[in-house]
Formats: sequence, structure tokens, C-alpha cells
Amino acid sequence: MNKTLLSSYIKDVANFPKPGIIFKDISPLLASQVARKSMTQKLIENFKNKDIDVVVGIESRGFLFGMLMADALNARFVMMRKPGKLPGEIMSKEYDLEYGKDALEVQKGCIQQSNKVLIHDDVLATGGTAAAASSLIKQTGAQVTGYSFIIELDFLNGRKLLHNSIVSSVLNY
Amino acid sequence: MNKTLLSSYIKDVANFPKPGIIFKDISPLLASQVARKSMTQKLIENFKNKDIDVVVGIESRGFLFGMLMADALNARFVMMRKPGKLPGEIMSKEYDLEYGKDALEVQKGCIQQSNKVLIHDDVLATGGTAAAASSLIKQTGAQVTGYSFIIELDFLNGRKLLHNSIVSSVLNY
Repeated sequence: MNKTLLSSYIKDVANFPKPGIIFKDISPLLASQVARKSMTQKLIENFKNKDIDVVVGIESRGFLFGMLMADALNARFVMMRKPGKLPGEIMSKEYDLEYGKDALEVQKGCIQQSNKVLIHDDVLATGGTAAAASSLIKQTGAQVTGYSFIIELDFLNGRKLLHNSIVSSVLNY
Repeated sequence: MNKTLLSSYIKDVANFPKPGIIFKDISPLLASQVARKSMTQKLIENFKNKDIDVVVGIESRGFLFGMLMADALNARFVMMRKPGKLPGEIMSKEYDLEYGKDALEVQKGCIQQSNKVLIHDDVLATGGTAAAASSLIKQTGAQVTGYSFIIELDFLNGRKLLHNSIVSSVLNY
């Protein structure tokens, strides 16, 4: 399935979650087994020979293809979540939003210093979340080999925040 | 992988999210490709010959194995989310919590009247969330063929709220 066909499984929804924003809805993609398989292959394409140990999926839409990617790469899957959701000992990283702050958390011990990590989320927008995710992974001593997104919003230039790693996205807008 | 071995991939965490609660942490299960594959097979075991059209995954841990189950059953995947997360026209169902209320939402048009639906979540506890999910599916006119959970907390007897459908869980505590 080529990118033009794949992009027909992404639906624009105007004024969501706020007026003036066009939301990229991946629901049609989730509903098609053929499109899911093709998307999974494209998401891992640049990482097949990179000895990825861990796929980190960012809550909550990063959980969807994250598990499929982990299977396809024969890697572990690790959840990265919003504060207070993960049990046990956790590591945390705060980051700035347009208004206020948010944070990401990961469990201690899930990622080892020697690991090569692939970060996955559905959309690369401003890059703030992905940069925070990367910073949190690096606190463990592990290497962020790269980032893989379904969608990249080019006009927000989020990839300028993501250094020294492969930044891969399947569909660019 | 038998159930005893699979259960070694679930970790008890005491006093999370509240004092006195023992949380069942599925993180070790997510980290093992072999255990993930075995769990996915067990999650769909009772639904292989049921012509499931749609796997509904409940936010957010229901997204993890939900996508793997949809692939294994050659079915569509549909997200069921907390209020305000899904774009477009939505259907909503309120339900009671221990203190207060919550709601689940699904997009209109994602599930057709003729569909056979399998509801998936990680844990069956009191059954309130699963019963609300079922009620929401039935609003579309579709049939809830069954429920599939990784973990069932037997002492809470949540399955008493789930009527006229197959209620399947891999690990019982």
C-alpha cells in the first residue's frame, strides 16, 4: 500500500480539540487490517537493521501501533505514561505545554543502559512530547536510536527538537 | 506457555493506586515477545469461530493487546475512550464509580448494526466499565459477542454485570 493510499485512512476533523485546529484522526486506519499491516511495516522500515531492544509507546495512541512494532522488531514494549498511571518506582520528566506543564513517566528498570530504544507516537507536532520522552530515556543511560511517527505536521517543525537520532514519519502534512 | 508461566509476567504492586489495593502490573508481559504472543492467542481462543467483526479496546491499556487481537481475528479495531478524546460525532455512556461518575465514548459509524463485537480490557474488576462499554455498543444495534480480559479479579464478581455474552479471562485471581 503506497503512502497516498495509506493517507486515505487518515481523516481530517476540523476544530478539534480546539477551534482552528485540524485534527488527524487515525480511526479509519485502525479499522483496516490491510492498512494496519502496511502502516506497521512502514513504521519499522528504517529500524529493521538497528538492533532495537525496546519500543517505547507514548500514552495513549502510541500504545496502538507500538505493540505491533515491538512484535515486528522482536523487541520489548515499554509504556510511557502521564503522571500517576504507572505503579512501582518511576522516573519522570516535566515539559512545557502552550499553557502550563505536563510530565511523562516510565518505570525504573524497564530500560537498561545498554539498550537501543525506538520511541513511537502517532503524531509529531511541536516535538515537545517526543523531546521529553527522549530526555527521559537518556536518563536511564540508554540510546535513543530513533523516533517513528505515523504523521508529521511539517509546518510545526517539531523535528528540530530531536537531535542525533533517526526521525522517521510515514505521512507528512 | 501455560497459565502458571504467563502469570509470572504479571507483577503485584502493593498500595497502588491507593493504600490497600494490590495493583496487577502487566509491564513484564509487554516486555516479552513470547509472552505477548501466547497471551494474544489465549485472549482470542474463545472467539476464533465467532465471526468477530470488531475488537473494541477500552482506553488505554485495552489498546495494547486490542490491536494484536484484531490482527489475529482479522477484525476491525475501534477505540473506546474517556470523554473529549475522540473527534467527530460520538456516542456516550455515563457510568457510576465508587465516588462520582465517568463516561465512555465511541465514534458514530465505527460499528454497524450487523456487527459482532468483542470488548477487550486488561482487567475485569467490578465490571462497571465493561458493562458501560457493552451498553454503548448495544446503542449502535450491534451484538456484543463477548468480553476478553487478561486478568479477572474473581472476588469482585464483576462478571455478574455482563449478561448474555461470553466472558473470557486468561488469568484469574
